[in-house]
Amino acid sequence: MSNFESSNIWSLVSGGITAHDGFTASCVSAGLKPSEKLDLAVIFAPPETICAATFTQSAVRAHCVDLCIERITKQKGKVRAVLINSGQANACTGARGLEDSLKATKALAERLGCSPEEVLICSTGVIGVPIPIQNLLQGIDPLVNSLSAESGEDAAKAILTTDLTNKQISIEANLGGRRVRIGGIAKGSGMIHPNMATMLGFLTCDASLPKDVWEAMVKRVVDCSFNSITVDGDTSTNDSFIAFASGDLLDELYFEQIEVGLKIVSTFLAKSIARDGEGANCLIEVKVEGAEYQKDAKKIASSICSSSLVKTAVHGCDPNWGRIIAAAGSAGIDFRLDEVSLWIGSIKLMESGIPTSFNRDEVVSYMRQKIKGINLKDNTICFRLLVGKGKNSAIAWGCDLSSQYVHINSKYTT
Amino acid sequence: MSNFESSNIWSLVSGGITAHDGFTASCVSAGLKPSEKLDLAVIFAPPETICAATFTQSAVRAHCVDLCIERITKQKGKVRAVLINSGQANACTGARGLEDSLKATKALAERLGCSPEEVLICSTGVIGVPIPIQNLLQGIDPLVNSLSAESGEDAAKAILTTDLTNKQISIEANLGGRRVRIGGIAKGSGMIHPNMATMLGFLTCDASLPKDVWEAMVKRVVDCSFNSITVDGDTSTNDSFIAFASGDLLDELYFEQIEVGLKIVSTFLAKSIARDGEGANCLIEVKVEGAEYQKDAKKIASSICSSSLVKTAVHGCDPNWGRIIAAAGSAGIDFRLDEVSLWIGSIKLMESGIPTSFNRDEVVSYMRQKIKGINLKDNTICFRLLVGKGKNSAIAWGCDLSSQYVHINSKYTT
Repeated sequence: MSNFESSNIWSLVSGGITAHDGFTASCVSAGLKPSEKLDLAVIFAPPETICAATFTQSAVRAHCVDLCIERITKQKGKVRAVLINSGQANACTGARGLEDSLKATKALAERLGCSPEEVLICSTGVIGVPIPIQNLLQGIDPLVNSLSAESGEDAAKAILTTDLTNKQISIEANLGGRRVRIGGIAKGSGMIHPNMATMLGFLTCDASLPKDVWEAMVKRVVDCSFNSITVDGDTSTNDSFIAFASGDLLDELYFEQIEVGLKIVSTFLAKSIARDGEGANCLIEVKVEGAEYQKDAKKIASSICSSSLVKTAVHGCDPNWGRIIAAAGSAGIDFRLDEVSLWIGSIKLMESGIPTSFNRDEVVSYMRQKIKGINLKDNTICFRLLVGKGKNSAIAWGCDLSSQYVHINSKYTT
Repeated sequence: MSNFESSNIWSLVSGGITAHDGFTASCVSAGLKPSEKLDLAVIFAPPETICAATFTQSAVRAHCVDLCIERITKQKGKVRAVLINSGQANACTGARGLEDSLKATKALAERLGCSPEEVLICSTGVIGVPIPIQNLLQGIDPLVNSLSAESGEDAAKAILTTDLTNKQISIEANLGGRRVRIGGIAKGSGMIHPNMATMLGFLTCDASLPKDVWEAMVKRVVDCSFNSITVDGDTSTNDSFIAFASGDLLDELYFEQIEVGLKIVSTFLAKSIARDGEGANCLIEVKVEGAEYQKDAKKIASSICSSSLVKTAVHGCDPNWGRIIAAAGSAGIDFRLDEVSLWIGSIKLMESGIPTSFNRDEVVSYMRQKIKGINLKDNTICFRLLVGKGKNSAIAWGCDLSSQYVHINSKYTT
């Protein structure tokens, strides 16, 4: 649980997305994946649940994304369920993409006893391949029959594609005598840029907040978690993050604590995605400080995380700070080189724009230790970059680039 | 010479950057590279030469870049020589970076009998490592002594770092009875994004044009050649392209033909850099058509060329068109999926946003043939993407991403 940011108020509990009363989930193997693994899941929310969501910014969107946006808007956030299939992204499949999404949500709505408008659908898998819709439709019955408050952890498995690990977390806090729980699951196709793969994330919270507060909160939290493992503006055809809040309205006094909890869950899931990058051996965490604006800090941090030259250098445990500085410089943000300092771990490699006489072996040894820490407890390589006298900072996450990545991605559809 | 775009007016000649009267060049091994290869070159222009240049847009620039910009501005383009060293980028070296650049250009100016203000310096190599300046200074005498009109082709070698091939070309045209020649040399550290490596390019033309015409022409030409193998806004610490025009003023009638020639030379050099990408097995050429604006077409083409998922798919000869479409969608330009068509080679894979029933084996076979064509004659894989009914198009170039790339870049400074 090394991705978990400790908090005085929030503590880990088990149960995942169904850790609290009210939400149920289930999953089945509907024959969508040739492997016969779990491939269809549903999350079912109590009545009067509010949902806020963010979706891909790509010009090429799957029909299911458009359908989600349309329904959430029309329903003013009042939706009851989300159906998730893995195996096919159902993007670029022409008119059939929308037809199949409509059929699937209609069938689920009938069985759940709600309106189709209250049902969302998310798809992940290969682009251009339609869903074997008959298989999916036949899966609806067993899916609904097995809905339970115990299935949250299985649902985390059903949404995976090339992921190597499940990504889920649930936390609990006592807010003024009331027990509040937040749970989340996510999948990334394993690639560090969820932009080009598909990133799906789902979150449930068993306390209610006013719709506009919840929406603004979700947006802020996604920005410094899921969107901090993404190069700006770059998203896939299907990226979706959907957050449900349900239950009695919470006192305004505790809104800030809820946001802390949301951030813990989202950051945990986002880092899990980066850490599980295809062929990755470590998580790269880049903190940029001293920027005039937070968005500038984020742009610089993202530029470093997404540089192939930085990623390959990390893979080789090569403290090639020149590449880090060059990637920072190319972010499109102006800064003065003579105000730049750089640390790898706790070792300072550059001060005021000039390399220090650092001990190279010491840095290599730090990187080697981290990259070997495959136990997920200690495989984070940290860069810290000071870019000026500003007061703003941001963190971005990425992973190393290995031959294994090339191998996996050279043969995806063959 | 597969990079050469044929023209009715311009034909290939030998001689490279000194293919014409007036310009001389030379190179020596000054002991800057441990390998004792050629590492110091000079290009010497006739009096009254006009120079136009473009440089890196990075916030982190080598001092030599700042010095070039300062001198070209101050001299209103009237410079006589450029000194080029390989082995050290001389970026992030503190005050010493500027001092060494000043010393080197002063020493060269003295021997050439011109003012230091008329001498430029470009450096390429590892960032953060200063130039062994005594070695460089001792190289100036032999360098100037060997200046000749025969050395253009050797100079092309002296500026290389990890490049596998020389990059040079010279062409000739008869413009109204006058013989005009244009020559060029370039280096890329072999990486397809010159943004993160160092790209240097030098061009000479033995006809003169008014300063403002020459500057505007060079800017336009760089934009559709060197800047089309670069992700927007991303450049290295040292990227430089310097173009000299010398000799009698050309009749306005022939300006357009000169621009055609400049474009032939620059495109040839830019494609040579992409084709020589580290670990690359082929050149990827992406043509985007039907855009409302040319800059939109360019952004989409660049987004496809720089997608790691597209690059690895090409490496595996996998016609994974979904990744091409997803990369196009994430360029930040809006277009309608139902107006999109895609070709790989001459095979149409998508029409009006829906995949055609193309013969997969045929596409794989096309890609295999190209990627095996290591003879540089026929190793270009072409994508064509129609994104709408607009009238603008653009081309970008890239290369495949191989395990060899990861191998080379994991161990650069070790």
